Amino acid sequence: MTTLLTSSNVALRSFNDLNRLVQLHPRTQRVQLRCKLAGDIETDESRILLEGVVTSSANYVPLTPISFLERAANVFGDKTSVVFGSSVKYTWEETHSRCLKLASALVQLGISKGDVVAALAPNVPAMQELHFAVPMAEAVLCTLNTRLDSSMVAHLLKHSETKLIFVDQQLLQVAQQALSLLSKDKIKTPILVLIPESENSSLTYDIHEYENLLSSGSSNFTIRWPKSEFDPISINYTSGTTSSPKGVVYNHRGAYLSSISTFLCHGMGPMSTYLWTLPMFHCNGWCLPWGMAAFGGTNVCLRHVSAKDIFESISINKVTHMSAAPIVLSMMANASPNDRKQLPHKVDILIGGSPPPPQIISKMEQLGFGVSHGYGLTETYSAATSCLWKPEWDSLALEERAALKSRQGVQVLCIERVDVRDPETMENVPADGKSIGEIVCRGNTVMSGYLKDVKATEEAFKGGWFHTGDVAVKHPDGYIEIKDRLKDIIISGGENISTIEVEGVLHSHPAVVEAAVVARPDDHWGQTPCAFVKLKEGSEEITSDEIIKYCRDHLPHYMTPRTVLFEDLPRTSTGKVQKFMLREKAKALGSLFSTERKV
Amino acid sequence: MTTLLTSSNVALRSFNDLNRLVQLHPRTQRVQLRCKLAGDIETDESRILLEGVVTSSANYVPLTPISFLERAANVFGDKTSVVFGSSVKYTWEETHSRCLKLASALVQLGISKGDVVAALAPNVPAMQELHFAVPMAEAVLCTLNTRLDSSMVAHLLKHSETKLIFVDQQLLQVAQQALSLLSKDKIKTPILVLIPESENSSLTYDIHEYENLLSSGSSNFTIRWPKSEFDPISINYTSGTTSSPKGVVYNHRGAYLSSISTFLCHGMGPMSTYLWTLPMFHCNGWCLPWGMAAFGGTNVCLRHVSAKDIFESISINKVTHMSAAPIVLSMMANASPNDRKQLPHKVDILIGGSPPPPQIISKMEQLGFGVSHGYGLTETYSAATSCLWKPEWDSLALEERAALKSRQGVQVLCIERVDVRDPETMENVPADGKSIGEIVCRGNTVMSGYLKDVKATEEAFKGGWFHTGDVAVKHPDGYIEIKDRLKDIIISGGENISTIEVEGVLHSHPAVVEAAVVARPDDHWGQTPCAFVKLKEGSEEITSDEIIKYCRDHLPHYMTPRTVLFEDLPRTSTGKVQKFMLREKAKALGSLFSTERKV
Repeated sequence: MTTLLTSSNVALRSFNDLNRLVQLHPRTQRVQLRCKLAGDIETDESRILLEGVVTSSANYVPLTPISFLERAANVFGDKTSVVFGSSVKYTWEETHSRCLKLASALVQLGISKGDVVAALAPNVPAMQELHFAVPMAEAVLCTLNTRLDSSMVAHLLKHSETKLIFVDQQLLQVAQQALSLLSKDKIKTPILVLIPESENSSLTYDIHEYENLLSSGSSNFTIRWPKSEFDPISINYTSGTTSSPKGVVYNHRGAYLSSISTFLCHGMGPMSTYLWTLPMFHCNGWCLPWGMAAFGGTNVCLRHVSAKDIFESISINKVTHMSAAPIVLSMMANASPNDRKQLPHKVDILIGGSPPPPQIISKMEQLGFGVSHGYGLTETYSAATSCLWKPEWDSLALEERAALKSRQGVQVLCIERVDVRDPETMENVPADGKSIGEIVCRGNTVMSGYLKDVKATEEAFKGGWFHTGDVAVKHPDGYIEIKDRLKDIIISGGENISTIEVEGVLHSHPAVVEAAVVARPDDHWGQTPCAFVKLKEGSEEITSDEIIKYCRDHLPHYMTPRTVLFEDLPRTSTGKVQKFMLREKAKALGSLFSTERKV
Repeated sequence: MTTLLTSSNVALRSFNDLNRLVQLHPRTQRVQLRCKLAGDIETDESRILLEGVVTSSANYVPLTPISFLERAANVFGDKTSVVFGSSVKYTWEETHSRCLKLASALVQLGISKGDVVAALAPNVPAMQELHFAVPMAEAVLCTLNTRLDSSMVAHLLKHSETKLIFVDQQLLQVAQQALSLLSKDKIKTPILVLIPESENSSLTYDIHEYENLLSSGSSNFTIRWPKSEFDPISINYTSGTTSSPKGVVYNHRGAYLSSISTFLCHGMGPMSTYLWTLPMFHCNGWCLPWGMAAFGGTNVCLRHVSAKDIFESISINKVTHMSAAPIVLSMMANASPNDRKQLPHKVDILIGGSPPPPQIISKMEQLGFGVSHGYGLTETYSAATSCLWKPEWDSLALEERAALKSRQGVQVLCIERVDVRDPETMENVPADGKSIGEIVCRGNTVMSGYLKDVKATEEAFKGGWFHTGDVAVKHPDGYIEIKDRLKDIIISGGENISTIEVEGVLHSHPAVVEAAVVARPDDHWGQTPCAFVKLKEGSEEITSDEIIKYCRDHLPHYMTPRTVLFEDLPRTSTGKVQKFMLREKAKALGSLFSTERKV
């Protein structure tokens, strides 16, 4: 922040005495920080003002993760910031200088305040740099899922009004097709900047190239600091399990606080080396591209997430931490011995999404990994809760430990509150491990809203809480455990059925590869559970009756699926099952038990 | 925050389009967060506003350390929060409940928004609880130095307009005398609440008692959350080395951020056990009463800071961290073997104030302590810099390590910037380890201002930076090293003389116990160094010429004191030398070398 705002707001002897304004520094600019609203909660008058107290650039700076990089360059200047393969190795001083150049180059290309800059790339160093360079130009970063097809990319570029897009060489075709689609629709296409696959990539394309662009910028660039910490820093599109993707807007304040929260909930420290197996396009890599700068850690970039590459990188770079989806964990646990390498020391993995299965935890621990589990949504920047481990649990048997680890846990540092409540009355559910309610959150690490979707934002923030749509119980020790998505829960004869529990039993059947359970509407029971099952190859002789009998042996009667259909499950680009499609199918089947007892 | 503010500010398609207001939730309260000012820096129009983005209680909460205690009760509920001797041991759930009760009792006693509640007590559990209970009642905590005399206590109670004061039994006489002084001046005296020395103290006084008061409150108290994170949370009076004490105002935002910064700069983690050797009245214990709640650590309270008590407490409570002034370190290093105890594990000590001498570091390391060093002022809440240790320094010789450790270091996480600059031009000094400048800071962990002293606040924040008054150099690795107080620097014949360096040489003389150097005005040289020296008992035969000769052998000629006076040094209640009194004395001596060469 180079501009000096050397002055002050009102200074009053008491907060009731608003007329006795003492204006300081009459010749300098004044800054007033105030919360204004029409209701009876916060007004200027409600702020406690003491005489002699001022707000100036000496004691107020909008919170932004850009500050982390400035500090990293000063404090950890000679430490390694980024490693990528054997060719790229930067210090924090170099990263700082490169980001300034890139920001400067973006401004030269016409990018200005509030413009959206997109990125379509795997975890290459450019992705880490864009997390700083784009906000430094006062622009908004929109990282896109690398598995999207060109029509979805086109849709999101249009929706976000992207002005410029960085594209990795491997995804160039998808991006170019997306731009063609936009052209066809007479929409102004964004500037395309290519991130080459390697330094030696021979470029014949008549397009901007990342390193050339960066070199054209100046490291004397004056950072365009956010004027407000509530200014947007990024847009992350949801994967659209239930509807079309929504653009989740993050702000500088939330990103600053979430960076610290996530780094700490991960158990990292100043000397941590983080392997990028979690995609940076996913919730801005849980804010860790910023968090690593806050603590001067080292980012180990990784283009391909394979067991061989992961073990190799851990060994070469002395990785201490990584995060991943459970699928990556399975991949590592099941890796062939040739692909595995001895770990240099314990490596801590934070798992997002579904809880890790006990046998995978066991395998990973045998290999020398520490596995923990967090829960969050795109709307919460990163983990909102983590299953904070207690030392007294160390001595428990694996199954017990796995059961404890499968819980979503307790709120992280910088989110204000995570609770399980009745979504209608907003009453807390009892912490008995049985009563279900919706997980709701509030605090500074909850999104600013859904881009251009006032209605969805309003719905999500109903009652002053963010509604996650996840159904959970709260255990007596305060730990939260998810039971289902609110939309997925089945109510049969007045009883709540967790589809996750039914799916758990189906998955335990030796012939089942995939399973998803949804509600089938019913005239008599209201709803009944309907299972969609994919069988292992060679198990095609299994009948639905056999599956139903197996479930009945392992579940209460009312939870047992009444219908079982064998087929492949429809999935989103991020691999989530599209339950809304299965619900449509189940609905089309009609009632199994009618009130007129036809069946 | 129990009130729901379910709504939103303006939602615009672009930030230029301020007329297209989309008001959400017409029937609910609206909250607008905006930075308003008259100048050209920040205006409502300058905020980037996107359609669909709102500010509501779901995604905005004023930052306050009260949130840490709420979370601690949920997340670390059964962990030990506070230990004191063998009689007191609370969990975080109990601390939470006790603080709610105490806040409720304060409100019942008539304490309301913005009222000042003072405390005069050593590090007993009540001090930790007051750090939460007072802000929970929307009041402002003012912890007073326990070494103050009654007239200074009276002065500060009057200046801060204290409504209620908590007083430890051992300091009751001082407090009662202070209240008498106020009565004599016809000033309304604050309510006095006694903190008894032990549970069994027989109380005959007709005054409020801490536990009785707390019991009268309700744990169902609704916390009075700050309406603005810029609301004051505490007032800390400076020790008044150079003038009468100034009331440094902290706000909730700064306290929240500094709690996290300090905890991390101390190298603490979730299972840390912190021994309270640092007075909690000093900068609110560097914000660690709040920080321990943020991370669910354990506070070990300590009434008397003696080597025996410290070693005993470390051993019994498995202390992992402590902070102290160098004097406590010497005390521990020089403790008799009978008072020492084997450490249960490495104990990390963060030293504030002057850097620790090499021989003390060496002794402490031999005893199993890890010693590090931070620098800050009352005005920066806590440490502004810390001498962040690099692993590659481990192998250096003790003297080299001590030299590195004696540097004030690099900025902590949550302060925005710490720099060494020319106090006039505000230009950065070169990082050459030689060029001197003033240490200046800016950021959210710089005080709100000096209570009722607009002029001093204005002076301190000149040019949009907080001026520390400390003169330092910046080394090529970016580490800062203090050379002197700005007011203490002597300019003789155009040369800057660091009084700290001259004092260092004086201290190395075997007969010198104490030494302080100030400027003596001079017609010819402008100023010359004047030393005040206290000799060891039995060394009274030493002459000023001998001292001057010794200095000349160890210092450049221009730095050598021209005047040496033997006497005791005047000190403040916190033990700092009152150089302004010495300067007066030196001034009264008149010129040593006049331009007319009389001498």
